[in-house]
Amino acid sequence: MDTLHHLIDTALDEDIGPGDITTDNLIAPDLKGKGVIIAKEPLVIAGLDVARQVFERLDSKILLNSGYYDGDTIKEGEIVLEVEGKLRALLKGERTALNFLQRLSGIATNVRSFVAELENKNVRLADTRKTTPGWRVLEKYAVRVGGAYNHRMGLYDGVLIKDNHIAVCGGIIEAVARIRGKISHLVKIEVEVSDLSEISQALEARADVIMLDNMDIDRIKEGVELIDGRALVEVSGNITRSDLNRLADTGVDIISIGALTHQAKAVDLSMKIK
Amino acid sequence: MDTLHHLIDTALDEDIGPGDITTDNLIAPDLKGKGVIIAKEPLVIAGLDVARQVFERLDSKILLNSGYYDGDTIKEGEIVLEVEGKLRALLKGERTALNFLQRLSGIATNVRSFVAELENKNVRLADTRKTTPGWRVLEKYAVRVGGAYNHRMGLYDGVLIKDNHIAVCGGIIEAVARIRGKISHLVKIEVEVSDLSEISQALEARADVIMLDNMDIDRIKEGVELIDGRALVEVSGNITRSDLNRLADTGVDIISIGALTHQAKAVDLSMKIK
Amino acid sequence: MDTLHHLIDTALDEDIGPGDITTDNLIAPDLKGKGVIIAKEPLVIAGLDVARQVFERLDSKILLNSGYYDGDTIKEGEIVLEVEGKLRALLKGERTALNFLQRLSGIATNVRSFVAELENKNVRLADTRKTTPGWRVLEKYAVRVGGAYNHRMGLYDGVLIKDNHIAVCGGIIEAVARIRGKISHLVKIEVEVSDLSEISQALEARADVIMLDNMDIDRIKEGVELIDGRALVEVSGNITRSDLNRLADTGVDIISIGALTHQAKAVDLSMKIK
Amino acid sequence: MDTLHHLIDTALDEDIGPGDITTDNLIAPDLKGKGVIIAKEPLVIAGLDVARQVFERLDSKILLNSGYYDGDTIKEGEIVLEVEGKLRALLKGERTALNFLQRLSGIATNVRSFVAELENKNVRLADTRKTTPGWRVLEKYAVRVGGAYNHRMGLYDGVLIKDNHIAVCGGIIEAVARIRGKISHLVKIEVEVSDLSEISQALEARADVIMLDNMDIDRIKEGVELIDGRALVEVSGNITRSDLNRLADTGVDIISIGALTHQAKAVDLSMKIK
Amino acid sequence: MDTLHHLIDTALDEDIGPGDITTDNLIAPDLKGKGVIIAKEPLVIAGLDVARQVFERLDSKILLNSGYYDGDTIKEGEIVLEVEGKLRALLKGERTALNFLQRLSGIATNVRSFVAELENKNVRLADTRKTTPGWRVLEKYAVRVGGAYNHRMGLYDGVLIKDNHIAVCGGIIEAVARIRGKISHLVKIEVEVSDLSEISQALEARADVIMLDNMDIDRIKEGVELIDGRALVEVSGNITRSDLNRLADTGVDIISIGALTHQAKAVDLSMKIK
Amino acid sequence: MDTLHHLIDTALDEDIGPGDITTDNLIAPDLKGKGVIIAKEPLVIAGLDVARQVFERLDSKILLNSGYYDGDTIKEGEIVLEVEGKLRALLKGERTALNFLQRLSGIATNVRSFVAELENKNVRLADTRKTTPGWRVLEKYAVRVGGAYNHRMGLYDGVLIKDNHIAVCGGIIEAVARIRGKISHLVKIEVEVSDLSEISQALEARADVIMLDNMDIDRIKEGVELIDGRALVEVSGNITRSDLNRLADTGVDIISIGALTHQAKAVDLSMKIK
Repeated sequence: MDTLHHLIDTALDEDIGPGDITTDNLIAPDLKGKGVIIAKEPLVIAGLDVARQVFERLDSKILLNSGYYDGDTIKEGEIVLEVEGKLRALLKGERTALNFLQRLSGIATNVRSFVAELENKNVRLADTRKTTPGWRVLEKYAVRVGGAYNHRMGLYDGVLIKDNHIAVCGGIIEAVARIRGKISHLVKIEVEVSDLSEISQALEARADVIMLDNMDIDRIKEGVELIDGRALVEVSGNITRSDLNRLADTGVDIISIGALTHQAKAVDLSMKIK
Repeated sequence: MDTLHHLIDTALDEDIGPGDITTDNLIAPDLKGKGVIIAKEPLVIAGLDVARQVFERLDSKILLNSGYYDGDTIKEGEIVLEVEGKLRALLKGERTALNFLQRLSGIATNVRSFVAELENKNVRLADTRKTTPGWRVLEKYAVRVGGAYNHRMGLYDGVLIKDNHIAVCGGIIEAVARIRGKISHLVKIEVEVSDLSEISQALEARADVIMLDNMDIDRIKEGVELIDGRALVEVSGNITRSDLNRLADTGVDIISIGALTHQAKAVDLSMKIK
Repeated sequence: MDTLHHLIDTALDEDIGPGDITTDNLIAPDLKGKGVIIAKEPLVIAGLDVARQVFERLDSKILLNSGYYDGDTIKEGEIVLEVEGKLRALLKGERTALNFLQRLSGIATNVRSFVAELENKNVRLADTRKTTPGWRVLEKYAVRVGGAYNHRMGLYDGVLIKDNHIAVCGGIIEAVARIRGKISHLVKIEVEVSDLSEISQALEARADVIMLDNMDIDRIKEGVELIDGRALVEVSGNITRSDLNRLADTGVDIISIGALTHQAKAVDLSMKIK
Repeated sequence: MDTLHHLIDTALDEDIGPGDITTDNLIAPDLKGKGVIIAKEPLVIAGLDVARQVFERLDSKILLNSGYYDGDTIKEGEIVLEVEGKLRALLKGERTALNFLQRLSGIATNVRSFVAELENKNVRLADTRKTTPGWRVLEKYAVRVGGAYNHRMGLYDGVLIKDNHIAVCGGIIEAVARIRGKISHLVKIEVEVSDLSEISQALEARADVIMLDNMDIDRIKEGVELIDGRALVEVSGNITRSDLNRLADTGVDIISIGALTHQAKAVDLSMKIK
Repeated sequence: MDTLHHLIDTALDEDIGPGDITTDNLIAPDLKGKGVIIAKEPLVIAGLDVARQVFERLDSKILLNSGYYDGDTIKEGEIVLEVEGKLRALLKGERTALNFLQRLSGIATNVRSFVAELENKNVRLADTRKTTPGWRVLEKYAVRVGGAYNHRMGLYDGVLIKDNHIAVCGGIIEAVARIRGKISHLVKIEVEVSDLSEISQALEARADVIMLDNMDIDRIKEGVELIDGRALVEVSGNITRSDLNRLADTGVDIISIGALTHQAKAVDLSMKIK
Repeated sequence: MDTLHHLIDTALDEDIGPGDITTDNLIAPDLKGKGVIIAKEPLVIAGLDVARQVFERLDSKILLNSGYYDGDTIKEGEIVLEVEGKLRALLKGERTALNFLQRLSGIATNVRSFVAELENKNVRLADTRKTTPGWRVLEKYAVRVGGAYNHRMGLYDGVLIKDNHIAVCGGIIEAVARIRGKISHLVKIEVEVSDLSEISQALEARADVIMLDNMDIDRIKEGVELIDGRALVEVSGNITRSDLNRLADTGVDIISIGALTHQAKAVDLSMKIK
């Protein structure tokens, strides 16, 4: 909550700084105006409320109106959002509001295209922690808007035991036992494994989730069979959109993909003042 | 300066929050380790100092070593950076440091590919204000690392008079005159025009820079001729990499492209703990 | 991490404000001194590192020395910590350092007395969210130092479905199903129930944890039998120290008690300047 | 003023963090509800306005209604406060609002029981600086609500010369003289003394207040006689409730007790959603 | 924008701190009152909106009314501003609001007296970076209110090459060339010169502005002739009000004077509560 | 403490913002340099430590050396401070360090000239709350450096009952009685009076200090006689330097003058890079 307020303040500060020297000197403070934000390509919209907050920071009485909700698909040329209020606020907030909308909608649109590959599959597509620093909560929100699921928010709300942890503790069984004795009973334990012998250990340790890291399809199939429902199975590592279908058919429960966020590009939106 | 410190704090906070429950419970606080960050694809590196600051926030005595400087080209498989210090700091800082490096190097790498198109051309490639909110200074830095130029930092350090300003003021000549009487003598005045008649007015108003907005090549050529060195000429609007060569030959002074930043994707870097 | 830094700054600010008018006017800035912090009653110490940070904020070269670690039992009259540095820093930091130590050690000492009741019992004693606002992470740390376990950190890192959520969703089964489709696969689902019929629904919904809220011993026994290992069982609600033994014998997995934190009193520590 | 706003923000942030994953996923954003906060034991209420601010942070249009004011005595089972607004805000703010109310009312209730011992006595009961870090202003407010007086707020708004200051300055007379020449004429000077000879010096130095530190009743009586109205007399140090009556009869002006704040426990309040 | 909010918060915090102990203890919270702020000497008013924000921070429903706008001349004895709202807010905000108004109007009044010397002269009077730390944007605003112009806001929005830069780069021509290749095309380049030979170099380097530093009138005249319109000419350095007329007649374009801000004194304003 | 750190950060941020575009582009990061700050007029120096902190923020290894301490008188042309470190830090910090030194030394120099008028007089010269918003602690420090005394820091650390408080309470005696029952026993009570009858009431109410507001010399003499040592006597209101001598001879204890701070002008200091 506060994080978003702060990011919006920072964004406006870095763009406006001590003042918009063009607008402040040419546009009278009380002049009113109306702007429309238009989709310049097909997209899944995300961030309407963020855009609203940007403009409200500049004019507390500004009016926003949209026929869409986050998650809606919008065609090229359609009006995403109408904004009516002080012309200065429209001109000063335009770029910042668009920068938020373009990135968040870019992620939602990207995610939606991955999700489409998995229609009717009984598998969950999840994001990772590969997000833009400062944007974790926002980008994870855009992932949900796009139709995928969030993995843990950060290092604090889920256990993921990786090779370095295992090496230091002297084995998967020791690592899981040690951590189970320390964490809240509400947090699940996931173990990252890189071969079949480690899977056996993770099962013996009663891990809640087993992540098969960077394995090929055949090894994944073997893994799923070996686990046999005794833990959730997640696959991760360099997965592209075209792999999704085959991966889903292996029976894994979760496919996590960093590209949902870090390979998303901004979509094209523009604002016209009327 | 403070902006970056704050962004790094925010980034670590959003990832670590009240604690890395895996690492804090499994790794002893004084255990030391060494990590190497490796390029998983060819890239132009940017953000080495940001990565350093991330790790130093977690272990003030951590040692970093790199054979490269920001702007260097790095081949796939090469070591970008070595980090040596507390293992907890390596594990907790890894993702945040990589998230910074991946995005900044992604921009630098993208920019370099645009710059390559303009070799031996007497034209300046510039970025725009289409940056990730909260990242303006960092992304503009990555643009310079990639070899292009910065346009104004924000609305505060350069005048750009657009159609809405002109409409309200009653014409280009009125708008330029009014603003010249208000701003510092060190700030230049740029006017955005959309046709040739407006160019004449901008020249009459003695604009320092004239931006030809969304014009086709032929109109741009006409514009450059008409302006004839009396103002700098900038072109902008939906320009792709393949347009660059032809645009440069029109004689324009500046080509500004939002895609330098907002179409950049993260490059692939990973960290191995030894 | 940042939260603690900020709390320490706030604490010093609220005590020192624009200046310690007694010390600043009577003690020369470079005068050195030595102080010892002494236990005035038997206690379990917690917060040594917080005390260290308080003094370091006032004199970056101050030296602290202790023969104890957080969690150690200290007898009345023993020296907990020695501090050596600028006399001004000792006098200005004394009260704030003690205020931190007294409250955190008060919690650890209180928790230890509860934990002692459960020796050799196979049950986990857990805290709640009934903590001092602003102190969540610190007080939960003191609970661990005392030997008990943390429940979820906040509303963000664990699901606990209560009667109001159930009522709105139309039943336990509906509520669990709806939330399972939204949250990360690493987060467990706990359901609060108040009678046996709700237990059946929670089991049918495959809740990970079932909280028996405010039930008497006989109902708890019935509940544990009914659940029969298919979910973790937590009891909560107005539990006193003297109930612990009997509760443990019912076979529940977790006993959570707000009094661990909110009924803890400060223990008595004082500082002598030598 | 800002301190409280900040503490409320911190408290909500530490509890809600990136989101209440139970409520946000199960309760529709616009659903309304009503809650009542009930006293589960007899208490003196303090913090009603803080609770109001907590809920308003989450729903600016929430309505609060109470038949009580801070300082009122409330019986077990009575409704302290009614809250009506968005159900999400009720569920997310409940624990934080209660945590504030429970601690502040706990202090007010504790203080009131001390004050009751001094009815009809011509003596002032005062708090100390032994408060929860970050809560100084709030806890001192609860002390006033309970019926006692505040000692100085911090090290900045009153002079209290202790043994270490005296030792460094070479005596009470020297210390008082030196500080009188430096501080504002509106600040009083208090000197802590531990025997009768020091009292004489403090009187000679014309201290405004003399604190008799850790003396027994007979010595206190002697002290009061010796001072004979030439300075205010304060006693402090390990005073329990049962000592109050006898202490008051010695003729001292102020009795200060750290236990007013640091030995207060939270009182029991709960919230029911209707 | 945020800078001002923060400065107002800081100002109220440093004055009110944990509370106005006089007003909070003597004035009922809901008592209303009316105050008038009166000019005690002739002045040019600046900061009316800052004063408004100060009072609104303390009473969001306070009403302010003024017959003047920033920049108006006000005679001794006239009412500058009426404030109506909670009496507590009036009494607590009075000093802070006046402190802002007195300093900002002091600058505006001082500037106006300099500007008056240059009536009908074709020259621009500009401020410098000699402003009160923390007040840059506000004081530069007051300069504009007074009728003069702003030089660059800071080191970030204009290039000013001084002797040290030149020495390091090996000459004016080298320095200008190097920086032109790095900065945005919207930023002008100013070069500080101290003799005629340097002017030639600055012209050869095509500097946009040439600053004649600490030259006497005759040298300035020579400089203006030599430059002959090929760059803007600025003079700076120990200029007093009585020099202005003669300086203007030399034909320089800009006269910059630090005394506009750093030699301004507060004007006298007081507030009466009715 | 934190207030000063924050003000320095704000000051550097407002001057440097996203970067010193001249220095960053022309001066290599590791180049070293040396600067000397020179008094351009006779002055009392104040703020040496603030200047040090400014430069250290920009180069943590910078070395500063001064032959003077705050409060020393420095002749025109003498070196106040030598600074040696990174040239970039010298150039970027120069203006901010000077702006702090010029204002603080300006106040100290101004105060010293007032103090000189009162040599051998038994009266205390005090400042007021008429300080630059954000600078309260710093300016009050400079007042002490100049040789005068501080009045209360703000509204929180001293009681000053004015006419509006008195009117609301129904008289001086009622106001003093009411507030004595609420405030800490360490805070003195001052009452502002405007005629002799009010003095009698203030004496009856046992005010610690009586302020004679805006009275002429004869009335002040009468007041002092009437009070006759039963309270401290302060005079305030439009007092100029030339009044001091006669005022001192009336026997008042404190003369408070807002002009100590708000009529102080910056003194002239400059920095030369060698």
